[in-house]
Amino acid sequence: MGDRQIKGVVLTALKIIEIADGDVLHAMKKSDSEFKGFGDAYFSTVNHGCIKAWKRHREMTLNLIVPVGEIKFVIYDDRIDSSSEHHCQTINLSINNYYRLTVPPMVWLGFQGIGVHTNLLLNVANIEHDPDETERVELDKIRYDWTN
Amino acid sequence: MGDRQIKGVVLTALKIIEIADGDVLHAMKKSDSEFKGFGDAYFSTVNHGCIKAWKRHREMTLNLIVPVGEIKFVIYDDRIDSSSEHHCQTINLSINNYYRLTVPPMVWLGFQGIGVHTNLLLNVANIEHDPDETERVELDKIRYDWTN
Repeated sequence: MGDRQIKGVVLTALKIIEIADGDVLHAMKKSDSEFKGFGDAYFSTVNHGCIKAWKRHREMTLNLIVPVGEIKFVIYDDRIDSSSEHHCQTINLSINNYYRLTVPPMVWLGFQGIGVHTNLLLNVANIEHDPDETERVELDKIRYDWTN
Repeated sequence: MGDRQIKGVVLTALKIIEIADGDVLHAMKKSDSEFKGFGDAYFSTVNHGCIKAWKRHREMTLNLIVPVGEIKFVIYDDRIDSSSEHHCQTINLSINNYYRLTVPPMVWLGFQGIGVHTNLLLNVANIEHDPDETERVELDKIRYDWTN
């Protein structure tokens, strides 16, 4: 399973405005080309070494931003006839690699807490949380070496 | 200057879903009654002891959530004929007092970093950042005892 760019996944460099009393960090604007409407904004934390995997959304497009700590994301594509079928893409996000990760529907996503303290992601999603559009499989159902 | 509820300010208790590998924290949904449309989502940090004050928006409604650290917010109302004119409202937000603070246009806002490590707020705003709808005055222009 090779590591390459997954079709529909977009990484967008985000601005950090440095201010002496505390910085301002961009996340998402209505005018951003990746913006597909607003449904829900929520945080997820992942403790050091812990893995949350695997989950996919049938309808939701995720926009993931990591303002605190460091999180490793792994996206696995098993969409039939996708140009990146059977490939995965990995990316570590943090304040030092400050990108927005846009994840399209129908790919599998897992993530792992890398930082020793708080690891926090914000998801700006185009639809509200709905368990009916979410699928989960156990960690070992998709072969990936998380110790990498 | 008395501390009381400012007209148009809304505090909404938010859900924290406790999960062994890391929690999920609600921020804002499209169906929330305080949701006035999506324009911009950005983070602001404020270092321990630092104060960012005073600023007001002529059009933006702010929805402030503090998922990391602790931030003290002070809202001052000088709107003529407001039922809370010349009053202020203070609230400390953190994971231990996890509310969304909705701030209407035309009131003055200041905030201070209380936690010793990272203090992070998310603003889910109804319009995009626009310096033309923002006013600032120096800290000492509105009398408030920040050492409280």
